[in-house]
Amino acid sequence: MKSQFRDQLPDFPMPVVTEGSAASNGNASPRAEVVSYSDDRRSRGLRTLAEITGESGVAVVQGLRELAPDLADWIIDFSYGDVMARPGLDRRTRQLATIAALTALGNAQPQLKVHVQGALKVGCKPQEIIEVILQMAVYCGFPAAINALSVVREALLPK
Amino acid sequence: MKSQFRDQLPDFPMPVVTEGSAASNGNASPRAEVVSYSDDRRSRGLRTLAEITGESGVAVVQGLRELAPDLADWIIDFSYGDVMARPGLDRRTRQLATIAALTALGNAQPQLKVHVQGALKVGCKPQEIIEVILQMAVYCGFPAAINALSVVREALLPK
Amino acid sequence: MKSQFRDQLPDFPMPVVTEGSAASNGNASPRAEVVSYSDDRRSRGLRTLAEITGESGVAVVQGLRELAPDLADWIIDFSYGDVMARPGLDRRTRQLATIAALTALGNAQPQLKVHVQGALKVGCKPQEIIEVILQMAVYCGFPAAINALSVVREALLPK
Amino acid sequence: MKSQFRDQLPDFPMPVVTEGSAASNGNASPRAEVVSYSDDRRSRGLRTLAEITGESGVAVVQGLRELAPDLADWIIDFSYGDVMARPGLDRRTRQLATIAALTALGNAQPQLKVHVQGALKVGCKPQEIIEVILQMAVYCGFPAAINALSVVREALLPK
Amino acid sequence: MKSQFRDQLPDFPMPVVTEGSAASNGNASPRAEVVSYSDDRRSRGLRTLAEITGESGVAVVQGLRELAPDLADWIIDFSYGDVMARPGLDRRTRQLATIAALTALGNAQPQLKVHVQGALKVGCKPQEIIEVILQMAVYCGFPAAINALSVVREALLPK
Amino acid sequence: MKSQFRDQLPDFPMPVVTEGSAASNGNASPRAEVVSYSDDRRSRGLRTLAEITGESGVAVVQGLRELAPDLADWIIDFSYGDVMARPGLDRRTRQLATIAALTALGNAQPQLKVHVQGALKVGCKPQEIIEVILQMAVYCGFPAAINALSVVREALLPK
Repeated sequence: MKSQFRDQLPDFPMPVVTEGSAASNGNASPRAEVVSYSDDRRSRGLRTLAEITGESGVAVVQGLRELAPDLADWIIDFSYGDVMARPGLDRRTRQLATIAALTALGNAQPQLKVHVQGALKVGCKPQEIIEVILQMAVYCGFPAAINALSVVREALLPK
Repeated sequence: MKSQFRDQLPDFPMPVVTEGSAASNGNASPRAEVVSYSDDRRSRGLRTLAEITGESGVAVVQGLRELAPDLADWIIDFSYGDVMARPGLDRRTRQLATIAALTALGNAQPQLKVHVQGALKVGCKPQEIIEVILQMAVYCGFPAAINALSVVREALLPK
Repeated sequence: MKSQFRDQLPDFPMPVVTEGSAASNGNASPRAEVVSYSDDRRSRGLRTLAEITGESGVAVVQGLRELAPDLADWIIDFSYGDVMARPGLDRRTRQLATIAALTALGNAQPQLKVHVQGALKVGCKPQEIIEVILQMAVYCGFPAAINALSVVREALLPK
Repeated sequence: MKSQFRDQLPDFPMPVVTEGSAASNGNASPRAEVVSYSDDRRSRGLRTLAEITGESGVAVVQGLRELAPDLADWIIDFSYGDVMARPGLDRRTRQLATIAALTALGNAQPQLKVHVQGALKVGCKPQEIIEVILQMAVYCGFPAAINALSVVREALLPK
Repeated sequence: MKSQFRDQLPDFPMPVVTEGSAASNGNASPRAEVVSYSDDRRSRGLRTLAEITGESGVAVVQGLRELAPDLADWIIDFSYGDVMARPGLDRRTRQLATIAALTALGNAQPQLKVHVQGALKVGCKPQEIIEVILQMAVYCGFPAAINALSVVREALLPK
Repeated sequence: MKSQFRDQLPDFPMPVVTEGSAASNGNASPRAEVVSYSDDRRSRGLRTLAEITGESGVAVVQGLRELAPDLADWIIDFSYGDVMARPGLDRRTRQLATIAALTALGNAQPQLKVHVQGALKVGCKPQEIIEVILQMAVYCGFPAAINALSVVREALLPK
């Protein structure tokens, strides 16, 4: 379990994502209008936010602007531009890990709903989302799993 | 986001796992020695526990027997036999989801260490484990991510 | 505080509950109709679930079946059949301990309501339930106690 | 489940505990020296603290005096004098409820150890303490139960 | 970082607040009607509760009286009389620290709303409250900050 | 409590911090040596990190570089450069709010120690830090306050 991993260490510090920079230079980009934000993190974050959360996530972020515009910017630039846009883990796994964490926290229902929808949007099957939540019964207890499943139901089977 | 998923619903209640039953009937099973436990959940759980956590997890479970033998059995039968052995999600994703949840809980360092080692054992790359923990800075805050990373370091780079 | 307890250790690993097994063999059992589930954990779990939570708990479990039938089964077989049905602690104390834990978690209101009703059903006095929650002000803070008391009010004094 | 409890409501606001007042008036009390604190909450709290936690709890409270004497006083006066000394729930149940809550919190190991010892001191059997913790696997997840059991082991089976 | 603070230690155990006692003796006090409670902690607590939370906090406490009159008294006597009334930290900082803690807990929305309003009442600017919550994105994660901001919005911009 | 705050809203979206930008343009800046990092968030973050946490915080961040260099950068750029460097709340209040939050979380002892030392470094009195933690007994329970005080003791009175 030991030194075998030390050899792998030089590999996993990932190079800084450069697609954003490229986009800001590439006039032909179909998303060139986003680049008017003059910041690569911004354009990368906006694109990632839209690809994962679609309209609902963008609306949440816009809703924060009245009271806390900087928080809205951090979500775009840091959460999505710096973190969620990273290579090294595919989007489906990222969404399932977020669903696991939000189920464990147990007090973030609005975010859980956004990320259940996001998981579906990036290609997770409903079955996979439910599997993650069932597994949380083991690690976080049955109430956490049951309450998270209520949120999944709202996302999967809206009235 | 709506009724499109309703159609998928008949698919995702998974059939009960039958490999355990089969194993207990099938003499030719390469794992027939485990089947001496006379209980399908038990044999499936023991096999899954060993495959994921190796000696360290088995030792943890054995260590519980003196004070709480039933808790040890539940870990084998329920946590591993009923839940972690399920199909529907690959083992790597299950371990990464567990790592996300344990990072979110923030008070389960022994289990986090076992599951970081388990993640490596089932084929996750160190880089993927670290990616999940970095992502938790967004959802659970930096202290949670930093402290989880300390546990990863112990598992990856033991002194 | 020490070795005096070591002598007691052989006593406290409890024998496996046998009432369920007995019931499945005993035709004269007044609960023989439940036994048609052909599984002792199942029949024991269903009986315990009904005795503690009555219709409301059974309805919650049924409500899980559409999306996660296995979670519903685990609640019956594991949570109630394996755990809550155990001897070694009377039902009133088990319900009060659950109320303490759910107050501490602070994010499991639906379960807290079910177990406040369950505590009343198994014979706890309203005063005892409230005492447990008041005590939580010391261990979990006043917001946790106040918010749990709101749930108690809904169970005790429905509008 | 409804109006039946409303009739019981006049009963459960408990009268103020008067044993402390009595003690401060009763010269023959074997604990008259404690009463020199000139405060009934204080004498009631000190007596309750000693009866439940013995030397270890008193030492913890004394250890707080250097930095936070008022916190030490609040533990005596409020936690033990106002809350834990209350009638309406027997001491064994109070300790088991505290153990359930501290297991749920998952980050209060020193307090959990004090209250496991306190539970034994007020007459809980080791088996009952372990039963409460096993039950927490259902409500708080297996890591919480396993880690609490480690604390129980230290209290029951000190090296 | 060391012994320099030891010299300051004799200073920081604070003398018991005496304003309450004074008020109970002073007939000319503009708050003499409160003093009819014949208990200094009580009068100090009621005054502090009213000064910080205004009508909304007083209403919350009154609402607890039907089921748990002693909890209501503890909030007045202990939470506000003993703790929140203390000198040593100005009221604005106390409210901002409470807002930070409630944001971290993440499951105490009613209390967060009361204390956002309380922070405004004791002179915090909206900007300062929002700053504290933005800072929590770092320590508790974005969901905690976003959900706390929703509560702030209700307090600042009621519909 | 209402529309009076709406009028203040145009005030509290704070202008983007410009000291960093200015510094990178202004050769005469007394902190020009930091600016060699070629990134305004970076220089602002490094300066703020050093001013608040001194050597201990910088060491923690460096310690993360082996496994997660990007996490180290985010702490500098986002946590300190974007968030903690903001105007709108003085540094002392920011540290006390962080101490409140970390006490509430209850599982972030290393970070709590860093920020207790940081609070002292930016000018908080020991008494003020202890006041915040005492106040947490009300909101998070006594175990949280007692355990946080243990961390304060290590920072104030190292052996």
